[in-house]
Amino acid sequence: MFEFDALLSTVAKGEAKPFTGLPPYHFVGGNIDEATVPSKALAQAIGDVIRDQGHAMGKYGMNSGPQGHLPLREFISDNLKRRAGMSVTPDEVLVTTGSLQAMDLVNKALLNKGDVVLVEAANYTGTLTKLDALGVDYIGVELDENGMRMDALERALSDLAARGRKPKYIFTIPTVQNPTGTVMPIERRREMLALAKQYDVPIFEDDCYADLVFSGARPPAIHALDDDQRVIYCGTFSKTIAPALRVGYLVAPWPLMGHILPLKTDAGSGALEQIVLAEFLPGHYDDHVAGLLPMLHEKADTLCASLDENFGAILEYERPIGGIYLWVTLPKTIDTDRLFQVALAQGVEINPGSQWAVDAAANKHRMRLCFGHPTVGNIREGIAKLAQICFQEFGLPIRSGNVERP
Amino acid sequence: MFEFDALLSTVAKGEAKPFTGLPPYHFVGGNIDEATVPSKALAQAIGDVIRDQGHAMGKYGMNSGPQGHLPLREFISDNLKRRAGMSVTPDEVLVTTGSLQAMDLVNKALLNKGDVVLVEAANYTGTLTKLDALGVDYIGVELDENGMRMDALERALSDLAARGRKPKYIFTIPTVQNPTGTVMPIERRREMLALAKQYDVPIFEDDCYADLVFSGARPPAIHALDDDQRVIYCGTFSKTIAPALRVGYLVAPWPLMGHILPLKTDAGSGALEQIVLAEFLPGHYDDHVAGLLPMLHEKADTLCASLDENFGAILEYERPIGGIYLWVTLPKTIDTDRLFQVALAQGVEINPGSQWAVDAAANKHRMRLCFGHPTVGNIREGIAKLAQICFQEFGLPIRSGNVERP
Repeated sequence: MFEFDALLSTVAKGEAKPFTGLPPYHFVGGNIDEATVPSKALAQAIGDVIRDQGHAMGKYGMNSGPQGHLPLREFISDNLKRRAGMSVTPDEVLVTTGSLQAMDLVNKALLNKGDVVLVEAANYTGTLTKLDALGVDYIGVELDENGMRMDALERALSDLAARGRKPKYIFTIPTVQNPTGTVMPIERRREMLALAKQYDVPIFEDDCYADLVFSGARPPAIHALDDDQRVIYCGTFSKTIAPALRVGYLVAPWPLMGHILPLKTDAGSGALEQIVLAEFLPGHYDDHVAGLLPMLHEKADTLCASLDENFGAILEYERPIGGIYLWVTLPKTIDTDRLFQVALAQGVEINPGSQWAVDAAANKHRMRLCFGHPTVGNIREGIAKLAQICFQEFGLPIRSGNVERP
Repeated sequence: MFEFDALLSTVAKGEAKPFTGLPPYHFVGGNIDEATVPSKALAQAIGDVIRDQGHAMGKYGMNSGPQGHLPLREFISDNLKRRAGMSVTPDEVLVTTGSLQAMDLVNKALLNKGDVVLVEAANYTGTLTKLDALGVDYIGVELDENGMRMDALERALSDLAARGRKPKYIFTIPTVQNPTGTVMPIERRREMLALAKQYDVPIFEDDCYADLVFSGARPPAIHALDDDQRVIYCGTFSKTIAPALRVGYLVAPWPLMGHILPLKTDAGSGALEQIVLAEFLPGHYDDHVAGLLPMLHEKADTLCASLDENFGAILEYERPIGGIYLWVTLPKTIDTDRLFQVALAQGVEINPGSQWAVDAAANKHRMRLCFGHPTVGNIREGIAKLAQICFQEFGLPIRSGNVERP
């Protein structure tokens, strides 16, 4: 048989194994509760619209060109106005194949090898791996319970300026930050804009989880407070409708949009998703999201209660006010890279902290737990099992549910 | 307003204008006849399956993981067996976001800057621009009416070997070659495999147009004749169902597939398309394609007749036996880059030959005309208009429909 191994490129490092299903206790990734996918309503929306408009799929980009299905872009700009206070025209919206593609396009448009960007010190692992792949330096800016700290941001900006460097952008997830779950207050958003203006740097705002604040009330997007078009913005329907749909969006001003479009070399994002969402969302989105929030809130409370019961006082976390994940700090003696491996072998999957922070070493005793996908019962079982595995491996927690472990 | 221009990366060269619709006479690209999109049947297929299986979209990759919806992969492997004589398991199939992504993944997995590959001398422009972007050298292998010439391929392989270089792959579109429309006979496919074996080189077979041979009869894929797994293969449903669906596929052996999967960082291709096609295709694909062929054949004949009538003897082409495009040779005095610009300004879009060949200068008097999207009437009008424009700009053709031009 022909051997391809000797021909592999320098980036073809990883080697995946055939998929064998998810582990029984799956506390990672952006998967959501399958019961919340609006299958019936989507099915109702889809038939007529495909019959009536499906012929447009004979053209790449259908009738709307490379920025994506115009009726969907119209809903997106309207939705961003109502929910995030943004004033955006459909011409400033690009429908992307998930928000991952939005991030790839912004990076491709702005970043060269050796450039530097500022990011929150604890971050979405994909942000960091994409920057690593591009050979771009990133500096982690510390967070507190209100998100990125402005004193830390100013220090980072002035330190770079002193070294004659200017970051290509400040990347932030201000609303339900990933993984910390923090929501940045409006005052701090204004401070960030002022600093960005002072240091002449753009902001890349990732708002993928913003519709999942349990109270339903969120601060306006940084983009909404921006008066000189320095904010690039992305969002998604993955967390509110279904991740497998792969429909996200990028908001950018012209002429920047004109420079980004030629970099989207995929001949357009999936048409069926765009047609169906354009039909479904206007009449259903608000009610659908309103229905998700109490379910997510209950799961967050269940996760916290299960952690308290099974791990007791040895761990710390900020009680989530939105989103689908919890950022947990364990005793320094517990290496979550090792916990990840032994737990996965026993059917419990977690995100080790080292992969979700700029300073991997300083976060080896932290972990990210996602609660969107598992059921309430599965969360209880899984966390009890995780505590058991953690005790077997590290001798902690000693007590579980007030009972000393044997 | 903030100025992004100074921040643009080295690859952000192009600047797109807002989309203003297609020109009235559109002889470019892979767009198909909108009347042939099976909107009704797709609409019928879609409702129940989304209602019943839609909940799986709550997970990235649904129930099948990163290679794509298993029922669709099962259809693809079955379809490749029946149509192309290939024996492939669903585990060797990766569903991609169009065949463009399949090409990107293969390039990412195998190519480093400075590598060299062999390609057909006249080629899909996307093949060449992707290789240019990667800094990969490519050598054009001459074609004749039976596709890539094996004497030219052997010369290219031995020349490289003499210089101590080995190509990373031989890229070929053997069935309805783009843009020449040639179909490589089975004997030549066997010769190519023998040469690839002799020089220890893999083959990357692009079969995107293979189901569009007007007679319905096609030679087996090179992949089907390969006995040592050196052929990587890609295909698509863009040309047979709808381009805007963005569903293609890559066929690769393990462990190569295991190296490719980590490079597909899009969190999966669109689920709705995959679910719907998996439901629609098994019962409808053969009849649907059979219905397309006479329509495409009629359009090809119309295009040839219109060219003969309006351009007379000044142009040459091989009568198409399949596909959606025609490769036309004009007198050397006609620069199709200029013709492209003046024609587009008057609403007629063509592909200038310089963009569809390795040797741009040697093909400035050629053009690619796509006939899939326009109606028969639109083809007649558009070609008459093109001849008129060509005469105004270049003084040729002098006669049109046997009438001397004023």
